[in-house]
Amino acid sequence: MLAPEMSTSTRHRHIPASGPRRAIATVCLSGTLEDKLAAAAAAGFDGVEIFENDLVASPLSPAQVREHCADLGLTIDLYQPFRDFEAVPPELLTANLRRAAHKFDLMEQLGADTVLVCSSVSPSAVDDDDLAAEQLHALASLAAERGLRVAYEALAWGRFVNTYDHSWEIVRRADHPALGLCLDSFHILSRGSDPAGIRDLPGEKLFFLQLADAPRLEMDVLQWSRHHRLFPGQGVFDLPAFVGHVLAAGYGGPLSLEVFNDVFRQADPERAAVDAMRSLLALQERVETAAPERVPVLDLPAAPDLAGHAFTELAVDEVSGPQVSRALAALGFTHTGQHRSKPVQLWQQGGARVLLNAAPPRGTSPGGAAVCALAVESADPARSARRAETLLAPVLPRTRGADEADLSAIAAPDGTSVFFCRTGADDATSWLSDFTPTGAAPGAGAGLTGTDHVALTQPFDHFDEAALFYRAVLGLEPEPVTEFAAPFGLIRSRAVADPSHEVRIALSVALLRRGEWAPGVPDPQHVAFATDDAIASARAMRALGAPVLEIPDNYYDDLDARLAPPADLLAAIREYSVLYDRDEYGEFLHFYTEVLGSRVFFEVVQRIGGYAGYGAVNAPVRMAAHRRLRMVRAGGITDRALPGRTSA
Amino acid sequence: MLAPEMSTSTRHRHIPASGPRRAIATVCLSGTLEDKLAAAAAAGFDGVEIFENDLVASPLSPAQVREHCADLGLTIDLYQPFRDFEAVPPELLTANLRRAAHKFDLMEQLGADTVLVCSSVSPSAVDDDDLAAEQLHALASLAAERGLRVAYEALAWGRFVNTYDHSWEIVRRADHPALGLCLDSFHILSRGSDPAGIRDLPGEKLFFLQLADAPRLEMDVLQWSRHHRLFPGQGVFDLPAFVGHVLAAGYGGPLSLEVFNDVFRQADPERAAVDAMRSLLALQERVETAAPERVPVLDLPAAPDLAGHAFTELAVDEVSGPQVSRALAALGFTHTGQHRSKPVQLWQQGGARVLLNAAPPRGTSPGGAAVCALAVESADPARSARRAETLLAPVLPRTRGADEADLSAIAAPDGTSVFFCRTGADDATSWLSDFTPTGAAPGAGAGLTGTDHVALTQPFDHFDEAALFYRAVLGLEPEPVTEFAAPFGLIRSRAVADPSHEVRIALSVALLRRGEWAPGVPDPQHVAFATDDAIASARAMRALGAPVLEIPDNYYDDLDARLAPPADLLAAIREYSVLYDRDEYGEFLHFYTEVLGSRVFFEVVQRIGGYAGYGAVNAPVRMAAHRRLRMVRAGGITDRALPGRTSA
Repeated sequence: MLAPEMSTSTRHRHIPASGPRRAIATVCLSGTLEDKLAAAAAAGFDGVEIFENDLVASPLSPAQVREHCADLGLTIDLYQPFRDFEAVPPELLTANLRRAAHKFDLMEQLGADTVLVCSSVSPSAVDDDDLAAEQLHALASLAAERGLRVAYEALAWGRFVNTYDHSWEIVRRADHPALGLCLDSFHILSRGSDPAGIRDLPGEKLFFLQLADAPRLEMDVLQWSRHHRLFPGQGVFDLPAFVGHVLAAGYGGPLSLEVFNDVFRQADPERAAVDAMRSLLALQERVETAAPERVPVLDLPAAPDLAGHAFTELAVDEVSGPQVSRALAALGFTHTGQHRSKPVQLWQQGGARVLLNAAPPRGTSPGGAAVCALAVESADPARSARRAETLLAPVLPRTRGADEADLSAIAAPDGTSVFFCRTGADDATSWLSDFTPTGAAPGAGAGLTGTDHVALTQPFDHFDEAALFYRAVLGLEPEPVTEFAAPFGLIRSRAVADPSHEVRIALSVALLRRGEWAPGVPDPQHVAFATDDAIASARAMRALGAPVLEIPDNYYDDLDARLAPPADLLAAIREYSVLYDRDEYGEFLHFYTEVLGSRVFFEVVQRIGGYAGYGAVNAPVRMAAHRRLRMVRAGGITDRALPGRTSA
Repeated sequence: MLAPEMSTSTRHRHIPASGPRRAIATVCLSGTLEDKLAAAAAAGFDGVEIFENDLVASPLSPAQVREHCADLGLTIDLYQPFRDFEAVPPELLTANLRRAAHKFDLMEQLGADTVLVCSSVSPSAVDDDDLAAEQLHALASLAAERGLRVAYEALAWGRFVNTYDHSWEIVRRADHPALGLCLDSFHILSRGSDPAGIRDLPGEKLFFLQLADAPRLEMDVLQWSRHHRLFPGQGVFDLPAFVGHVLAAGYGGPLSLEVFNDVFRQADPERAAVDAMRSLLALQERVETAAPERVPVLDLPAAPDLAGHAFTELAVDEVSGPQVSRALAALGFTHTGQHRSKPVQLWQQGGARVLLNAAPPRGTSPGGAAVCALAVESADPARSARRAETLLAPVLPRTRGADEADLSAIAAPDGTSVFFCRTGADDATSWLSDFTPTGAAPGAGAGLTGTDHVALTQPFDHFDEAALFYRAVLGLEPEPVTEFAAPFGLIRSRAVADPSHEVRIALSVALLRRGEWAPGVPDPQHVAFATDDAIASARAMRALGAPVLEIPDNYYDDLDARLAPPADLLAAIREYSVLYDRDEYGEFLHFYTEVLGSRVFFEVVQRIGGYAGYGAVNAPVRMAAHRRLRMVRAGGITDRALPGRTSA
């Protein structure tokens, strides 16, 4: 059960078919047009918006693109964009209509019946709604002759038209059956417009719906839009409510993603397309919940409640295995069980459980220890697994012996296996029965009560994908994104947690992909255990010889200047290298071990009051301390060259 | 002469000693405090500003840091930052003075005599200049007791104090000898404040000067400041004028760099420190020019005029060598010379010269062809070389035979060798005499007249360094930065050119460092040759069998819709796969060859009128076409799978 083979194969055939059609703009994905169409089809999309630049660079003629899409099972729902058309002087109108005629010819060959026209940003345009309406009427007439439609969209930075109600006013005045609106969630929600008014628009005039989420950023809206859009559920916009309004108005077209994102533009399009599809499925579920009367029920099992971390599994090798075992023993853990058929040890202390797997799954990087799996307690493991599969999580093949627990596992975006189990259950989901007790009597321990969180560095291209994965698949809620300056570059961090904070996973990523100069711990991972008394735990662990990471005196001097903790507390945390943080909700005491192998370490945390963070303010100090240890051990620096307080 | 060994060794001993002292804030550089201090010292800085977070994470005590800096020859010119001090209620003042006392203790141990106090952003602060002045007076009194000084700085986003004249008004009212101003070019110039008023401030109250450049960005000023600052000469601020004002006021402290930059934060600190020092030396030269009476003369030879590209040298191997030779022949070049002692061929057509080096310098990546050197015509090669060396350019060791030309070469940030020469000269700087004529009669050619530009992808961490390198060392002027969406991610591009556009180098970089999904040409490089008639050249080259890159029909259809070129022109460029661009100054016709080896190709360009760009709008089309050829040749796609117009 505990060593599924890593696999990234997904089953894209079981996309729920009910509800609106799903589409994606080619601009969301990296690659040539051919790459993008293949990725959209593989992820199960029904249709695409074709971005002009993708077509222009393609060796396929429009007719060939049409044929290719048909072969892939994709419709072409929109051709985009047509810019700077309306409210211009007559001679420019002539040129613009000529340009439009060329594009309409192309659309006929392409088999796309709707063109997106963005509100003008041209310096030649004038502020005259009647003129805009008149010229759009002319455009719509030209389109109608060919059986095409024009969807007019207010850009958030349109020169005169930049709100959906203004674009509607122009469409209303133009009054042409081939002219309607394109609504884009980014353009509307980025400006803070109230989307509720969309409910009052006539549904038959809503020609197209483009969806994008975004983080809240203080920047020029055009830059925000062009570089930082996200798939629904990855940002801060209330898209379930937004889509609810649009559907309530009677919109019957596809839900189509249009996401400009610097990372997605250079990431594997097949993975990005799956991420995109997952975002739409999870969005549809939330829209249903908000407005059940409008949308057919999606065949998506609800996320069962989670009740905590069941275990965390580390892959170890000959060198790191004994090192991690010694560290666990010195943290007060006891080796209580041995797997019946595999070289896997169970270590326990209170509710904290760690598995050491000496025959790690294929794909686990060699040379040291790594977190290869995390397991969560699910109220209904089978339902959790069905939900995951429906949401396109790669399901891992199981290799289990007779009578061994039948646990479902999926692969998270970083390759970590995620198990759903019920540790205390009297059935096949209780994995504990796979272990033969070692007979070792639990020691006095060091006060650890359970697992507080697991912290995993994400692959650069998959940070936002990971947050959405845990949100959609496990039902965890993403916490706000934080960024901080670490010694070797900026770090972005975001935790996901269930509503009662029984399961917490802290995701992090370098703000820029690391290059040649990357002297920190590579892709660090750690498991944080909970204690009710960090100082007592630290004292007990020191007695046991735990490899606790030493923190510089300067840190405590600064802490005194900044937060003035009580003198006895300051003295104690200084003595035991415990770090400290405080916010408006409570306090946080935590300490770390040294790195075991190349990238894994442990943390012990005590939460006091309602402190809900992860001590990010202290992370740079931890990183510098880990770096120094690496250099000292590698012989790169000596105490003579750089005098100071070291553990060497 | 033509195969210097690659070396990145620099001589940091010859930093000009005249003029103000030079300092750098540790926050500019990546790494731990120890890494940063080592890098600053190696680059020849006189002093550092120590950023609090760097000290806090260091195992060195403040006294040890002091000692370590002294060993490295560095003074500690500023400790920073102290935030949110002034204009607060009494109980907060008490806490703030306690915090300050802690930091002053630390500064005494550190041997730093000046602390930076940033104008408050605290919600507890009130808008009361007299209160601010009174409390800063109290802080200055506390500092003065220890012989320390307080430098008060208006943050551009300070809550009440965000301009230098406002900060000066408060310092004036406080009237304490230990209280003065810190001026930061970013905070002043980002807001568009007129810095000329600085001339009227009393010099003895200017305690510190922090320098940063920046690109012009439309974003929140705090984000702009924290992520996108640049070293002087890399952005758009007029720093020579700014520094001129500050020196005119009588400022006598160091010129100190304080640059928050996401890329520099994760780049090799030793290289970043050299880049930083080069920026200060080049800035000082420009300040001198602007205000010669205020600054002692810097011992920096002026940049000689450049008169064009002398040659471009490609490293080739057994496979790519014949391929490139065939391509050059088909582009109308003639193999006119053979190096007297090395396996280097000279190919010429008009003023365009290419060297093919079959024994490329060590360090050149194997597997295909690569641009290993570019040579520029200098009015004074020896002076060019002296200037380069003074500006910390790595000087390449020369390996030349007796009687061979004595050319100086330096290494650009991407490792390309840069030679200074005088092709027509009757002396040792004429490299042509190193070649024995082959006796081959020049063919009819294909109309090429010279080298228009060399386009080089830069290493991710060194794009801004490269622009400054060419600006400072060669005296080329950077053109505006452009960004465009390419099939595999966003590309940033910036050209540098001499005032008469005889020498042009186009630098580009991926906006995000490429990851696993990077199917484009890796780090492409190309040499662009000039013609007076692109269509005639294309016709001639087709007759010669040149491997011209085929451009899709869709491109021409779109061009017709967008720019409506004359029908005969459109037909001709469509026939010959010539790309087209137009701007307010003129027109641009250009076409490309296929990729030769793994990354190099050639371009032919015709500039009409004053067109000064590089056809960036067409680059994505070229990239997609190159990608498709690679896939077709690798067997990754077949014409059946993806029907279309191909050259296969």
